[in-house]
Amino acid sequence: MSRARIDCLIDGRADDRLPADDRGLLYGDALFETMAFLNGRCPLWSRHWTRLRHGAGVLGIPLPEETLVESECRRLLAGDERAVIRLTLTRGSGGRAYWPAPECRPRRILQRRDWPPGIEQQHRSGLRVVRSSIRLEGSPTLGGLKHGNRLEQVLAARECLERGADEAILLDTDGCLAEAIASNLLLLIDGECLAPDSRAAVAGVGLDWLLDQPEAGVRKARLEASDLDRAESIMVINSVAGIRPVRELDGRALEIGGLCRRFQALWTQRLDPPCDD
Amino acid sequence: MSRARIDCLIDGRADDRLPADDRGLLYGDALFETMAFLNGRCPLWSRHWTRLRHGAGVLGIPLPEETLVESECRRLLAGDERAVIRLTLTRGSGGRAYWPAPECRPRRILQRRDWPPGIEQQHRSGLRVVRSSIRLEGSPTLGGLKHGNRLEQVLAARECLERGADEAILLDTDGCLAEAIASNLLLLIDGECLAPDSRAAVAGVGLDWLLDQPEAGVRKARLEASDLDRAESIMVINSVAGIRPVRELDGRALEIGGLCRRFQALWTQRLDPPCDD
Repeated sequence: MSRARIDCLIDGRADDRLPADDRGLLYGDALFETMAFLNGRCPLWSRHWTRLRHGAGVLGIPLPEETLVESECRRLLAGDERAVIRLTLTRGSGGRAYWPAPECRPRRILQRRDWPPGIEQQHRSGLRVVRSSIRLEGSPTLGGLKHGNRLEQVLAARECLERGADEAILLDTDGCLAEAIASNLLLLIDGECLAPDSRAAVAGVGLDWLLDQPEAGVRKARLEASDLDRAESIMVINSVAGIRPVRELDGRALEIGGLCRRFQALWTQRLDPPCDD
Repeated sequence: MSRARIDCLIDGRADDRLPADDRGLLYGDALFETMAFLNGRCPLWSRHWTRLRHGAGVLGIPLPEETLVESECRRLLAGDERAVIRLTLTRGSGGRAYWPAPECRPRRILQRRDWPPGIEQQHRSGLRVVRSSIRLEGSPTLGGLKHGNRLEQVLAARECLERGADEAILLDTDGCLAEAIASNLLLLIDGECLAPDSRAAVAGVGLDWLLDQPEAGVRKARLEASDLDRAESIMVINSVAGIRPVRELDGRALEIGGLCRRFQALWTQRLDPPCDD
């Protein structure tokens, strides 16, 4: 007998609704990871888990068993060749307004999503990108975490839609380059590939991986807004879409350089080797 | 026949669970108001609604009909003498990650809560308050709004619990006084009552009301952290708990002055006139 497809697990139960008093809803009191699965495997799993563990420590939310979450992911995938799973870890229900309950009973939500369309085309042809008017906060406490307070990204995405762009580049409140809405940034400047070093940027696991590949030769640096004009080429990177070139920034055409193609090949070779399809 | 008590309405239906793909949960993509109702009436309703309307304009979330929400509040109260209703307005479900769906179908959640215990005692005897280590962001875009991104307040509340305090005072990232965790601040300095003017503070409706009472003589001013040491007395104010004095700040005893008692009397007279209980 065929079973109905399950797209969401809440604390291990097939369910797609959760209590309205969940603190993730009330306060964004949550962390999340959006993870690419290829043929049942998440190549960047350990980096996602490390970031989640770090965030859970900062927020004081107990981490579920890693093997439990892995098995729940397998249950959701059910033979998908490519899929995305969002894992949300909230502080659960309870407490008195902002004050959490003394005993935290976290809630974990796993949501399966179809592979986003159009990524291959974007890999080849690149993205139309604009400079966002939204400045990102660089919270001393929350900086780098993939937490549930994402209104700035949502507002930047609204603006991006209105301007007909695929992505937008955001500065931090110091006026330095931070990241794109849902990706980190890479700039080729004077022959060197640099990623902005900003507390306002999410510590992306895709970028984290690339920084660890010695042959990529990428390093982090504090970058000014004006470095966008100096850049010979610009790329964006995230753990689901990989590395995508920017073909246009605020109407200025940018070259899709050989470096981008080399990075893409490295990504495919190490994280997404071709299969039989 | 007696009907089961309803504590939560979602889009007008008696329900306390909502879809796990609600953007309020996923990104804190929401606004809220926490409203005190006394004998079926919310004395600060129009100020709550004005703030919500402003926030909805900034975030681009359509506002529900005011009269509809009022009637839903009455349905939840069902004869309560004192109760609190939290109204949460989320961007609803849909969209592609941070990118909202082109057509926003917002979701409204009304949650009834019992009147918080201990407020009368705090009015009389005051609060133990500490300086928080958390610095509040002053987002140019989100400043003042009562939005769903409240992790900083949650972390400050955790710290406050750990230190055995009732409330905590937070600075903004410029090092200026911002607010308390769930209240605005009032400082009596050189005989004048001042409220911190900081983009990082929520535009509290209780404070908003007090600023509009000419006989209170309160004005907003940019205040430094060191002004806490100069203050002859300190109070906190929010729309549910009203005006509460600080009796101790980081171990230093503070006087509960006559000004606090006059403000409390003004609040009671205008917003909370005695009833028969």
